[in-house]
Order: sequence, then C-alpha cells, then structure tokens
Amino acid sequence: MPATLVGLLVALVAVMMGAQTHHVSPVFLVSNVTALLIVVGGAFGATMASFELSATTGVFKAIMKAVLGKDTPIDSGETIKTLVEFARKARGEGLLALESEMANLDDPFMKRGLQLAIDGSDPDSVAQVMRTDIKAMKVRHKVSLDWCQSYGIFAPTFGIIGAVVGLVATLGELDKPEKLGAGIAGAFVATFLGVFLANGVMLPLANRMKRLSAQEVQAREMVMEGVLAIQGGQNPRVIEETLMSYLSPGDAEALRTASS
Amino acid sequence: MPATLVGLLVALVAVMMGAQTHHVSPVFLVSNVTALLIVVGGAFGATMASFELSATTGVFKAIMKAVLGKDTPIDSGETIKTLVEFARKARGEGLLALESEMANLDDPFMKRGLQLAIDGSDPDSVAQVMRTDIKAMKVRHKVSLDWCQSYGIFAPTFGIIGAVVGLVATLGELDKPEKLGAGIAGAFVATFLGVFLANGVMLPLANRMKRLSAQEVQAREMVMEGVLAIQGGQNPRVIEETLMSYLSPGDAEALRTASS
Amino acid sequence: MPATLVGLLVALVAVMMGAQTHHVSPVFLVSNVTALLIVVGGAFGATMASFELSATTGVFKAIMKAVLGKDTPIDSGETIKTLVEFARKARGEGLLALESEMANLDDPFMKRGLQLAIDGSDPDSVAQVMRTDIKAMKVRHKVSLDWCQSYGIFAPTFGIIGAVVGLVATLGELDKPEKLGAGIAGAFVATFLGVFLANGVMLPLANRMKRLSAQEVQAREMVMEGVLAIQGGQNPRVIEETLMSYLSPGDAEALRTASS
Amino acid sequence: MPATLVGLLVALVAVMMGAQTHHVSPVFLVSNVTALLIVVGGAFGATMASFELSATTGVFKAIMKAVLGKDTPIDSGETIKTLVEFARKARGEGLLALESEMANLDDPFMKRGLQLAIDGSDPDSVAQVMRTDIKAMKVRHKVSLDWCQSYGIFAPTFGIIGAVVGLVATLGELDKPEKLGAGIAGAFVATFLGVFLANGVMLPLANRMKRLSAQEVQAREMVMEGVLAIQGGQNPRVIEETLMSYLSPGDAEALRTASS
Amino acid sequence: MPATLVGLLVALVAVMMGAQTHHVSPVFLVSNVTALLIVVGGAFGATMASFELSATTGVFKAIMKAVLGKDTPIDSGETIKTLVEFARKARGEGLLALESEMANLDDPFMKRGLQLAIDGSDPDSVAQVMRTDIKAMKVRHKVSLDWCQSYGIFAPTFGIIGAVVGLVATLGELDKPEKLGAGIAGAFVATFLGVFLANGVMLPLANRMKRLSAQEVQAREMVMEGVLAIQGGQNPRVIEETLMSYLSPGDAEALRTASS
Repeated sequence: MPATLVGLLVALVAVMMGAQTHHVSPVFLVSNVTALLIVVGGAFGATMASFELSATTGVFKAIMKAVLGKDTPIDSGETIKTLVEFARKARGEGLLALESEMANLDDPFMKRGLQLAIDGSDPDSVAQVMRTDIKAMKVRHKVSLDWCQSYGIFAPTFGIIGAVVGLVATLGELDKPEKLGAGIAGAFVATFLGVFLANGVMLPLANRMKRLSAQEVQAREMVMEGVLAIQGGQNPRVIEETLMSYLSPGDAEALRTASS
Repeated sequence: MPATLVGLLVALVAVMMGAQTHHVSPVFLVSNVTALLIVVGGAFGATMASFELSATTGVFKAIMKAVLGKDTPIDSGETIKTLVEFARKARGEGLLALESEMANLDDPFMKRGLQLAIDGSDPDSVAQVMRTDIKAMKVRHKVSLDWCQSYGIFAPTFGIIGAVVGLVATLGELDKPEKLGAGIAGAFVATFLGVFLANGVMLPLANRMKRLSAQEVQAREMVMEGVLAIQGGQNPRVIEETLMSYLSPGDAEALRTASS
Repeated sequence: MPATLVGLLVALVAVMMGAQTHHVSPVFLVSNVTALLIVVGGAFGATMASFELSATTGVFKAIMKAVLGKDTPIDSGETIKTLVEFARKARGEGLLALESEMANLDDPFMKRGLQLAIDGSDPDSVAQVMRTDIKAMKVRHKVSLDWCQSYGIFAPTFGIIGAVVGLVATLGELDKPEKLGAGIAGAFVATFLGVFLANGVMLPLANRMKRLSAQEVQAREMVMEGVLAIQGGQNPRVIEETLMSYLSPGDAEALRTASS
Repeated sequence: MPATLVGLLVALVAVMMGAQTHHVSPVFLVSNVTALLIVVGGAFGATMASFELSATTGVFKAIMKAVLGKDTPIDSGETIKTLVEFARKARGEGLLALESEMANLDDPFMKRGLQLAIDGSDPDSVAQVMRTDIKAMKVRHKVSLDWCQSYGIFAPTFGIIGAVVGLVATLGELDKPEKLGAGIAGAFVATFLGVFLANGVMLPLANRMKRLSAQEVQAREMVMEGVLAIQGGQNPRVIEETLMSYLSPGDAEALRTASS
Repeated sequence: MPATLVGLLVALVAVMMGAQTHHVSPVFLVSNVTALLIVVGGAFGATMASFELSATTGVFKAIMKAVLGKDTPIDSGETIKTLVEFARKARGEGLLALESEMANLDDPFMKRGLQLAIDGSDPDSVAQVMRTDIKAMKVRHKVSLDWCQSYGIFAPTFGIIGAVVGLVATLGELDKPEKLGAGIAGAFVATFLGVFLANGVMLPLANRMKRLSAQEVQAREMVMEGVLAIQGGQNPRVIEETLMSYLSPGDAEALRTASS
C-alpha cells in the first residue's frame, strides 16, 4: 500500500479520533456550511486564478498518481542492466546493432535518445534533445506540484477569513446568547479546516509530487548519461561504475552480487 | 472564459455567500471607511513607494492581461511547424531564401532573430541579441508581478494596523457600550480586507503573471533554439525532435500525427 | 514628484485619516514614550548592531536618494545613441579617435571602460575591470538596502516586545482600573508603531533601493556590452540591435523612429 | 558524549524543570490523549504522506546516527596524510604501485576512485564517477533530513489543530464549568507538544543531519581532489598545500607540525 | 567604539528604559526562573543539538570578535598598494625578486599565494589553492553565524513554550486569584525573553558575522586576483585599475590622490 495514501489516512484518523476523545464530533468539524464555502471554495478559487485552466483540470490526475501510484515507481537497477548490456553490444557490434533492440524497449525516453544516436545525430544534438526533454518534464511536473502547494498556502489564510466572518457574526448576536455559539463555532471550524486542508492534505501531496518528480528526473539523468556514454563508445565496465554511483550503497551491492 | 477571471469570481462569491450564511452582510464587509482607508490606501501607498512611477501606472494593463487575456496564449505546435518549414527551406535554398517569408511573419521575436541571421550576423551575435531580449522581457514582466506581490504582502500588515486602530478606538469607548461595537467591527473588517485583498486578489494575480511570464520565456527560448539551429544549417528532422521536447508528450503526439 | 515620496505620504495619510474616522488621534498613535523607546530605539539598536558603523551613518544619504531622487534616473536611449555613435567613429577612424570624446563624457563608468580600451588593454582585462566594478557597486548598494530591510524586520518584533511590556504593566494595575488603560494603550501603540514603521516606511524604502540598484546594474551591463563590442570592432548596426534589446518594445520603437 | 544527545537532553530538562517551578507537572504536558493523537499522530501521517515508504522506515537509523554517532566523525588530517603518501609513491613508482595499498584502505570512496585510476580510466571518467557518487550521497542524506524537517514544520500546525479542537470542546461545556478545564488544557497541551516536538526535537535533528551531510560531502570533495591530483601526477607538495586549505588554520598548523 | 557593541547596548537600554516608563521593572523582566529555564536553557539545548560540539564551544570567541573586534577590520587600500608595488617589482626584476619581501608580509593568505607562485607552481594550482582556502574560510565562518541564527530562531519558539506553560499554570490556580498573577507573568516574561534574546541579541550578532565574513571573503578575492595577475605578469597599471574596482568611488579617489 503506498505510503502517501496510508500517511493521509493516518493524519485524518489521528485528528478525528483525537477530536472524538474530547467529545468533538468529526462530523461537526467538516459540516459547517459557512466554513466550507469560505475555506474550501475560497482557496479553490484563489488557486484556480493562479494558473491556466489546464493546471486545474489536470491536477486531479496528478493527485491520483501521487496517492495511488506505486510507492517507488522506478527500478534503477533494471535500467542500469539494460544500458550496460546495450553498451556491450554497441561496443562489440557497433551502434547500429542496437536497432533491433528498439522494438522491445519500454522506456520512451531511453528509446528516443538511442534512436537519435543510431540515426547518426552528433552527440551534442542527442544531449540537447535529452536535456530539453528532462527540463520540460520538470516544468510539467511543477505545475501540479505548485497547484497543490498554492492551495496549501491559501487554505489557512481563507481559514482566517472564515474565522473573522464568524467573529463578526457573533458581534451582531451579543444580545442573543443562545445564537452566539454558532458564530464562534464557525470561526473555529474555519480555522480548523484551513489548517487541516493545508497540512493534512495539500502540502503533503505537494511534497510527495516534488519527491516523485526528483526521482523521475534523476532516473532520466542516469539514462541520459548512459546513452551518451554508449554513443561515445565508452568501456561498458566504466559505464556500469558511473551509473551505479546513482544507487544507494546497499542497492549497488545487491546489483553487483546479482550481476556477478 | 479565462481561468483567472473565473477563479477570482469563485473566491469572491464563495466568501460572500459564506458570510451570508452567517447573516454577515457582504456590504458590511467592504464598506467600513476606516478599514478601506487604512488597508486599501495604506497598502497602495506602500506598494507605490516600492517602485518607480511607471510600475504603478502600468500595472493596470498587466492585471487586465492576466484576468481577461487568453488562458493559454501560446501555440507552440504552430511555432514548431513554422520553424521546421523554415529549416527545410533554408537547408534546401539557403538562408537568404527566408527573406521572402519575413513579411508574413507575425512573431516579432522570431522575425528579429531570423533577419539578423539572414543579414549575415555571426551566430554568437544572433544568440546574444535574442538572449538579451528574453532576459529584458523577463525583467519587464517581473515589475508588474512584483507590484501585485508587494501589494499582497503589504495588505495583511495594514490589516493588522487597521485592527489595532479599531481596538484602540474601543479603549476610549469602554464607558459607552453602545459605541463599542463600531471599534471592534472596524478591527475585524480591516483584518478581513487585508487578508482577502492579498489572498483572494493580489497574490493569485501575481502567481498568474509569473506563470504567463514563464510560458512566454519558454516559448521564446524554443524560438531562439530553432533560429540558431536554422542558422547553423542543422538537419530539419533533428530540429523538430529538439523543439518537440518542449511539448508535453500528449501535444507532441498530436503534432506528430498531424504532421505525418 | 517621485513615486516613493508620494507613496510614503499616501500610506501615512491613509492610515492617519483612517484612525481619525474612528476618533483615534494620530498624535496619540505616535506620542507614547514607552512605545517609541522600545520600538524605534530597540529596532534601531538591533539594526545598528547588525552592520559596521559606516552602514548606519551612510543610510541616511541612501534614503534621501530613494525618496527624493529622480523617479527613473537612467536614460538608456541616450546611452545607446552615444555608444552607437562611438562605435561608428571607432570603426571608421580607429579606437584612438575616441580619445577626443573622453573629455566630454559624463558617465564615469563608460569613460573608464573606453579609456582602458583606448589605452590598449586586452578585452579580457577591460571586461574584468568593468565586471568587478559592477559587482562592487551592487555590494555597496546592498548595504543600505539591507539596513532598511533589517530595520523593517526588527521593528514588528520590538512592537511585540513593547506590547508584552504594556501588558505586564497592566498586571500590576489590575486593582487600579483608572490606570489600566495606559498599559493597554502602550501595548497597542507599540504594535502599531512596529508594523507601520516596517510596512509603511522601511520595507518600501528597501524595495525601492533594490529596484534602483537593479536598474543601475542593468544600465552598466548595457554600457559594458557596448564598450566591449566597440573594442571588438563589431558592426555598429549589430551593436545597436543588441543594446536595444535592453529597452522595452515601446522605448525601442521610439528610439528607432527618432534615429531614422 | 555527542553534542546532539546532550543538547536534546538540555532542552528537555530545561523545559520540564521550568514547568516544575510553576507547579505544572511534566507528566501532564505529555499525557493528554487528545493532544498526543492529533499532534504526534497527525504530524506523523502528514510527514509519512510526503515521502516514499523507505524514507519513513529509514529515518530511525538516520536519527540514531545523528543522536548517538561520533560528534566529529571525520579525521581530515589522517586522510590528507594518506593521500600525500600515495601521491609520493605514485610519483616515484607509478600509479600501479598503489595497487598493493588498496587492500588495506578503509575508505570505500577513496578506494573506488584510486582503483579506477589504477585501472587506467581517463581522468574525466574518474572525476565523473566520483562526482556522481558525491551527488547521490547528498541526495540520500537529504531524504532523512527533509523527513525530520517536514515533521518539524507540520508539528506546530497540528498543534494549532489540536488547540482549535480543544477550544471547540469548551464551547459545548460552557454550562458545565467543572469540565471546562479539560478542553482548555487540551488546547494548551496540543500547542505545547507541537512547538516542542518541532523546536526541541525534530528541527535540531534536521539541522544536525544537514551539518553531518555537509561535512561528509566536503570530506569526499577533498578526497576527490586528492585522487585526481594523484592521477594527474601532480607534485605531492602542491597536493598537500591544496588539501590543507580544507582544514582550519589551527588544524593545518597542527598537521604541519606533526608531519615535519 | 564598535557599532555592534553600541547597537546592542542601545537596544537593551531603549527596551529597559521603555519598560521603566511604564513602571515595569527591568529586573522583573529578566529574573523569572521559569522563563529563564525554558527560554534560555531550551533554546541553548536545541541550538547545541543542531551542531557538533566544537561549534558550541567556539561560538563564544566568534561573538567576542563580532562585538569587540574592529568595526572595519580590513584596509583594502593598503592591500592594493602592497600588491601593485609587488607587481612592479615582479615585472621589473622577475617573480623571484619577491622572495625577499615574504619575510615582512603580515597577511598569511597573500603570503601563501605568492610563495606558491614564487616556487613555480602553475597558475591553475595557485588559483585552486587560494580558492579552496577562501571557500573553507567561508564554511568556517558560517558555523558561528548559523549557531547564532539558530539560537535566534529557536528562542521565540521556546518563548511560546514558556508562555503556554505559564498559562497552563494559571488554569490550576483559577480558584486562588492571588497566585494567578505569577502564571500570567511567567507567560509574558517568557514571550519577552524569547523575542528579545532573538531580535535584540542573537539575530543582530548573526547579521554582523555575515557582514564580517562577506568582507573578509571579498578582501581575499581581491588578494587572489592580485596574486594571479602578478604571476601572469600583467601590467601593474591594469592590476591597480582592476583592484580599485573593489573600492567605493570615494575610497578609490582617496587612494588615487594619495598615490599620485
């Protein structure tokens, strides 16, 4: 079960159980119409206004990937094995010999780089295409990440707005003590919602997306380094050494054991 | 309808409807003279003082563009098609053959770069002119963006100032309970105005301007890369590959399908 | 009238008029001895301690320049015209022909660079001297800017200190209700002073100094680019194109029209 | 005894003794179930959700290393002596002569670099492998560091959530004054726990991990510089001078005295 | 008298005098045992835990230097004169002629660089040794600076902890009004101490150390530039021009007048 989903549930359950121990109903904390409108609606509007429409329509998919996607989606060891094998073949039989491998290659990024190399593009062009590709992927990832982070920054401020509105409401009711509670409750619940939506949902999601993006970037940088080394005809042994530097000492050890 | 306009309206309506559900009149929240003077006026003065005059007079135009402009103003696919076509022509008939295309070219940035190339400037000069142009555009964009962000940072602090003034006012009226409400209301409304002006208006605008600027910068970097590749006589196929790296995988796929 | 002076006055008048509408006397807000000592004195001491003495003695001059100086002190169009004219002369009659222009040249930075070029220094040396000069100017500007920013960061925290002292004072007077007001007023006024000194005075000044510094840096970078291009014997037309990239499209258009 | 363990104990004892002097029982501060659930559980969930699972399972080991590990784990003087000795041997008898030293070498990073050099890899490859290795180590360190920092950032916000829940609880008990205390106590204890967990535990740990990582990175950069200099056949005297630049003047003096 | 010492005293006296004008005894503000334990002890523990032991034992020396050291410890004009003189001698009589000057040279950094140049190290090695030396000095300076900054960041948060403990104390005394004051006083004094220790002491010290470090770094960069130019046999006149770019226009003018 992926860590993000578990973590979000842990935070939610911990807070709601904590409230329960104080005889504060979880339903009460999430069913105040004023607070929901101001905090959820206000923060959504402010975030939506911060981006082009496609960022808002596309963020749901990115959230699903962060919450439900594989916990560690990339197997760098497997990638290294493939690249070293290709390096051996290319060194033995020439770059063109890799042509036959292209059909079975799943990774579109590696495929694109190798295809350019096989087609005879000069190394600088291959590097430039691959580098631009990585940079553009980073930029794309950053949109969803920034969306969640913006929501996480706006939510507590709309919580303050909801609290102020709640307190203003009590001012008009000072002579009706029996109605006073509603205003104060609205104020508290808005604060609660704003802080929880930010720190219990949106900021963890943004953090997670940042990690996922960094991992994908690093994985592609490793592939790029491998493809350029293959094109440069480097020694497969040196390529393996270089690529293994990307692994943790434990993973590298495991790979070494497996490959020998 | 552009996302920024919709988003700003969503935030406004959500907050005002939320207030209404608590019997707090939206009119009340925006008609306190003390709060308006201190928050709107104070934050405007502080922001104006932070910039040269032209930044303050020019920000209205930039806000209009962010609110009412096209949601995604740049069609990179179209630009790539144009550049690849020019690359084919230049490779086949020489750079000078592009002279005839210049008249019909809308994009002044691409035109300027290509014209310099056609006129025989050396590649380093063309790159330098184009790079300086992009850098200067970024600096110009940043002025309006920073203006809105400054207003968004100053507004809540003037909200605090308004709240303090409101509370001081209540001190002098402790013996006149019937007037006490006005001071407290002023304090709350100033807080509300400061936080809402920042998070419901100015910071989303600043965010949006940052995104628009980044998109324009990226679009021009793509054009620059294309122009320099054309001048360098690179293979149109490689140019296309490189430029397509700027697109999302979906857009790239669509373009590939369309162009084949 | 410069924008900074106007802006600071707008903020001051807006806040004071706002207070007046609530029957809070502006005099009251700025004449509490406790608050003045703690906030103005404390923040001054903390800021002074953050810098060498010359930063504190020199900041007054920098503030005057930011408040009373020209709103846009640099005319880049004029500078471009001068540089292009020099480029034509140097290309036609040789670098030494510029010697006669040196006497009438106002800009000490341009003069220094050109003089080095005329004296036959190699381009790398000229670039290094000019680059070091720009960097050192930036560092000098940053001192006053940082001073104002430090004051702006310290002021609200000493406002909190003043508020706490004011509240402690009320604790000792709980049995003398008639004296209670003074403590609370001190607490409120200290908060007011701290937030206003920061956001209505010092932070706008720091922002403005940052803008002025950035403009001067950009202007000198343009001059440096021009001088190096003249020394390199580049085509005056290309030099003009490059330098015009620093202007906004509107200013560039105006200059083109004027020069043709 | 390592500084981190002592420091954490000092902070804990100081706070608990301070509470005791006010007749606030330390047990009371850490035994409120509501506060513990919301703050400890909520912040843990939010942090867990921010990372892949291995970050959460691996952070315990990193915390143990930061708390119980050697205070200054790296002896750079010893490393310099080894590298200079190797440099002398390599200069005198050739790089291959170092082969016999490899078996006794403890430092796996130095070993890996030297082995590559001995095996005849070109200097650029050796540099690349070593640089990638350092970068990857930095990335690995950053995961645990970021985990503790995230917890330290989330904890006070869940403290606010706990405080709000506690205050909401009091609203329902306004007519039962004898139960009112529990709600307020929960509010205070949640605030206490959130701020203390962050500033008395997690943020100091994150700071310490950052220092440890920086020291390890610097130590490896020194080793890399030494290995590349040995491979380049540089003068051992110059290598020593360069490497000693990494030491503080005092340590360098001590080493000079010891080695002469 | 150095600005840092004066500034710290100004802040202290202003705050204490301000308190006095409100009949709040300065002794009262600094003699609450609870507050002292929690704020001073807690922040010290948290800071100590953030660093290796030597950072905590060495910070006292760095604080003394920042408080009592010379206000502007570096005379760049004198350094420039020395370097230009050496440049003349080296150009006239060869680098070896500088050997005789080494004995009288006070600056160990300049001495080290020149000695390497005299000994015939290649320019890249000299540059590398000097650059590593500057970088390592920066890293050493940063430790004390970060220590003070950490203390300044932790202190107000332990002030909050002290305030919460003080308020919890009042909860248990609600039925003993005569003891109620002590709890509230503890809460206020802890807040006061935390904010003052940070903003009136530790953050100004950290700021000052940052300035001192930047000045020392700049001074050494100037020396490095001079030494490399001397080794490169550059024209003494150009060296003087380059080095003078580091001075303010006023200081440069003064030096020019003095040297002509």
